[in-house]
Amino acid sequence: MNLVLLFEQDFVDSSRVILEGRRAEHIRQVHRANAGDILRAGLLNGNMGQATVVSVTQNSVELDTCLDTPPPPPLPLTLILALTRPKMLRRLYRTIAELGIKQVYLVNTWRVEKSFWQSPVLSQAHYTTYLFEGLEQARDTLLPRIEIRQRFKPFVEDELPQLIEGKQAIIAHPGLGSTHHSLEDSEVVLAIGPEGGFIPYEVEKLSALGFKGLDLGERIYRVENALSFAIAKLF
Amino acid sequence: MNLVLLFEQDFVDSSRVILEGRRAEHIRQVHRANAGDILRAGLLNGNMGQATVVSVTQNSVELDTCLDTPPPPPLPLTLILALTRPKMLRRLYRTIAELGIKQVYLVNTWRVEKSFWQSPVLSQAHYTTYLFEGLEQARDTLLPRIEIRQRFKPFVEDELPQLIEGKQAIIAHPGLGSTHHSLEDSEVVLAIGPEGGFIPYEVEKLSALGFKGLDLGERIYRVENALSFAIAKLF
Repeated sequence: MNLVLLFEQDFVDSSRVILEGRRAEHIRQVHRANAGDILRAGLLNGNMGQATVVSVTQNSVELDTCLDTPPPPPLPLTLILALTRPKMLRRLYRTIAELGIKQVYLVNTWRVEKSFWQSPVLSQAHYTTYLFEGLEQARDTLLPRIEIRQRFKPFVEDELPQLIEGKQAIIAHPGLGSTHHSLEDSEVVLAIGPEGGFIPYEVEKLSALGFKGLDLGERIYRVENALSFAIAKLF
Repeated sequence: MNLVLLFEQDFVDSSRVILEGRRAEHIRQVHRANAGDILRAGLLNGNMGQATVVSVTQNSVELDTCLDTPPPPPLPLTLILALTRPKMLRRLYRTIAELGIKQVYLVNTWRVEKSFWQSPVLSQAHYTTYLFEGLEQARDTLLPRIEIRQRFKPFVEDELPQLIEGKQAIIAHPGLGSTHHSLEDSEVVLAIGPEGGFIPYEVEKLSALGFKGLDLGERIYRVENALSFAIAKLF
C-alpha cells in the first residue's frame, strides 16, 4: 500500500479521517506507524497528498489529511479485453488500475470459455476491491470503469465504431505486422485477445473497423504480461 | 501449454516419445488430441518443431517428433532481482522464462524480508517446474539459469564488475533520470529492487559501478509488472 486510499465517508470533518478494518490494520502492522508519522494518502477520484497520523489504537487509526495534489494523468487508453479465467482476472484488475488504465471493456470472444461468465469476479462489489488495491499500489486515485459486454458482434458493430472515433485502434495479435504508431496526443483503443488469441473472423471484424496490428514478438505471453508489455511499447 | 516441453528421457528412440503424468493429461484433456493430430513440441535446451500424436491411452500419450527449428533467440539480458515474497516469486519464475530471460541473480537487499530466504521456492527442484511452465507458455526451450546470492555487498563488489563488463548496466529506479539507451547489439544487465525499492546506499553502490537509471514513470508497479514493462522499454 503505497497510498492510503480514502473515501468521503472516512472523513469526520474537512481534513480528519478515522479508519478501521483493513487499512487501519495495514497502517499499524505494515507501516508500523505512530502518532506524528506522515503517510501518503488520496481521496478516491480526488486529490492526493499527506496524511499525518494523529493516533493509533487497537481498532482504529486517525489521520489529519492535506490533499492538494492531483493524481497522475490517466493513460489515454481504452482497453478491450477478452474475458480471462477468474484467477487471472483478479490479478488483471489490479494491473489495470496499477498501469493507469481508466476504461475497460471485458468482452466475449470465440475462445473465451463460457463458464468464465458465471464467475463472481464480474460483480462490481468484487472487482472494485481489486481496483482499489491497484490504485493503492500505483499511487493513484482515479477508479477505472469496467464495462462488461457478453456479446461480441453487437459490441463490435454497434458500439466500437463510436469508441474508436478519432483514436488509434490497435490489436495485439501476431502476424498483422506492426505499424510504427505515432502516439503523440493520440488516444488509443487497444484490443487484447483471450488465451489462444482472436479467431480469424474476429481479427477481420476488427481490421475492417481500422484496427492495426501490434506485434509483441515471437514469444507468446500470458494476457497479463502481454498487457503491461503492450502498454510499455505504446506509451 | 503452447509447446509440449520434452526431455531426453522421454525418447524411446530418435524420434518417438512416450509421455505420462501432467503433460499426457494436458494433451488429453486440454488439447483433446487424437491420433494424427499435430502439436508443437520442443526438446529442453534443444530444437523445437512438430509432434504427431501416435496414440492416446488412459495413462500415456505417444508422439512422433520432428524437431528441426532452433528456439527463439534469448534476450541479451542478465537480470539482477531483489528476492521477492514467495508467492510473487513463483509467478516471476514463469514470467522470467516467458520473457526469454536466461540469466538471473536473485539477491538480497536491505528491504528484502529475511523470512523470504527460508522459502522452498528457492530450491532448484521447485523453481525448475515454474520455469518449465514459462517455456511451455512462450514456446521456448532454453532453461533460464537462476543464481542465488544472499549477500549484497560481496555480490556487488566481487562479482558484479565482471558481470557488467562490456554491457549496459541499468537500474529500474525512480529519480535517477532516464538515459536514452542505445541497445543495438548491446547486452544489458538490469537491476530491479524489492518492494519499497533499493535504499540510497544500494543505489550509490550500483551507480558507482556505472549503472544508469531507467525511469518507469510516476506510478509504482509491482515487481512483476515492472519487469515486463522494463523489458518492453529496453528491447
